[in-house]
Amino acid sequence: MSFERVAIIGLGLLGGSIGLAVDEALPDVATTGFDADPAVRRRAAERGLAGTICETAQEAVADADLVILCVPVGAMGEVAREIAPALKPGSLVSDVGSTKASIAAALGKALPGHAVIPAHPVAGTEHSGPDAGFASLFHHRWCILTPPADADPAQVDALAAFWRALGSMVEIMDAQHHDLVLAVTSHIPHLIAYTIVGTASDLEDVTQGEVIKYSAGGFRDFTRIAASDPTMWRDVFLNNRDAVLEVLGRFSEDLTALQRAIRSGDGDTLFDRFTKTRAIRRSIIEQGQDDARPDFGRKDHDD
Amino acid sequence: MSFERVAIIGLGLLGGSIGLAVDEALPDVATTGFDADPAVRRRAAERGLAGTICETAQEAVADADLVILCVPVGAMGEVAREIAPALKPGSLVSDVGSTKASIAAALGKALPGHAVIPAHPVAGTEHSGPDAGFASLFHHRWCILTPPADADPAQVDALAAFWRALGSMVEIMDAQHHDLVLAVTSHIPHLIAYTIVGTASDLEDVTQGEVIKYSAGGFRDFTRIAASDPTMWRDVFLNNRDAVLEVLGRFSEDLTALQRAIRSGDGDTLFDRFTKTRAIRRSIIEQGQDDARPDFGRKDHDD
Repeated sequence: MSFERVAIIGLGLLGGSIGLAVDEALPDVATTGFDADPAVRRRAAERGLAGTICETAQEAVADADLVILCVPVGAMGEVAREIAPALKPGSLVSDVGSTKASIAAALGKALPGHAVIPAHPVAGTEHSGPDAGFASLFHHRWCILTPPADADPAQVDALAAFWRALGSMVEIMDAQHHDLVLAVTSHIPHLIAYTIVGTASDLEDVTQGEVIKYSAGGFRDFTRIAASDPTMWRDVFLNNRDAVLEVLGRFSEDLTALQRAIRSGDGDTLFDRFTKTRAIRRSIIEQGQDDARPDFGRKDHDD
Repeated sequence: MSFERVAIIGLGLLGGSIGLAVDEALPDVATTGFDADPAVRRRAAERGLAGTICETAQEAVADADLVILCVPVGAMGEVAREIAPALKPGSLVSDVGSTKASIAAALGKALPGHAVIPAHPVAGTEHSGPDAGFASLFHHRWCILTPPADADPAQVDALAAFWRALGSMVEIMDAQHHDLVLAVTSHIPHLIAYTIVGTASDLEDVTQGEVIKYSAGGFRDFTRIAASDPTMWRDVFLNNRDAVLEVLGRFSEDLTALQRAIRSGDGDTLFDRFTKTRAIRRSIIEQGQDDARPDFGRKDHDD
């Protein structure tokens, strides 16, 4: 079993990258695309983000074996209700949202009796919109599938094969566990980055110009992920509240402990903590999830 | 006035990069270098991090017009006391430490009556040691000088010209203000990165393997700066305590406000906060302090 016609609903960074990746890796698969924004549809047509850009979501999904929803987490239910009457019997609906339990619930409610297998490709950049996508976005990145208990194993295999064809490595996981793991590896880092960038811009005694000038000391790394799409991230936090608050509680405890060490001049605690963290970095590079060159090979080094 | 002989004490990332940059940009300037670690001295000689690698710090500084201390912040006073008897009359002592008020005090005490102008090149990578340095590290990066009130203006100008020759842009600032600005743009980002990487590795319900596999969701950016030299950073926090605790207090307040917005489902507050932060990113890129390519042009994109 494999997919011959794939519909992509939402043509931003993720949807656009899927379209381009299918075109490159699975040239025999036909793609249709739709975005609610007419300007995005025009740009998607210019860039060829899907074989056919449709004027309605229903038109885009009508002949598809696989429908992938690439809209913000909070819009998944509404889009699913919109396409429900037009879905081909036997087709599979999936998505790329960053939270999984709330999406599984929303899609299950909107599409009763229809096959749904949520998915989350753990890949992205700080850019968004129809110009942001590129075909290699998923190369050597993990895609997590969270099939419900009653999912058809053949459909799970077909969806896994689809993501592997696009360059991903595939993992199957429980939706609740996904939401906890991603709270740690993605949601809390984004929340912290948004917070510190906001804190820095609100200080009275340090100007915004100074923050920008001296950002190479570490701050600039946070601004990259704090430049991510606000709608997407608002929805992530509203839809993964429990896991985010749990991990945030741990983080705050750990930060308080380091704050106390600084206040009391406890250099040993600081040194121990700062030493432990190097090993994780090493493993991330060994497993190909980041670039070992200094500063990831930022261009300034060889200008 | 300019410097003909420069001594570099400490041959890690910063000291080594200064040596290589002088060799490239100021080939007529002679450099001597010293490091307390014999293995570092051997490697520094192999890489040519200074024209002459000396066996003692006193030997390295004996003929120098400019002595630059490139050791951890907490070691500055001790190194200054060691070289004091050997300094050439009229020579200038400077440094590259990440805090400035405590270093000004330590050097002033160790070198009474001798000319001292502290400096801080805001540049670095996550790597450390004698293999980490490269000649272009300072290109298009700011170097902050914090001359004491009685500094000789000709020496301030000469030091500024030295750093400009190495590719830096130079700013003059009060030491206390420097420490507050860098608490925001460098010290707190590092503390937060060390904390979240530590939090992630201590969770019971999420394995370290999972954290590493799915790090591309945002976490990996934090691991880069959390891989920085532990001794250096311990000393930074012990020597810039007041400014760090002040900014940390603000950060914690702001994080608590976002935590409350998540708990109460207040999407508008989240959206507003996440929108504000994009402008800073744009300015940092416009001013050449970061790379606009997605993910800084990490290599995975075109593999």
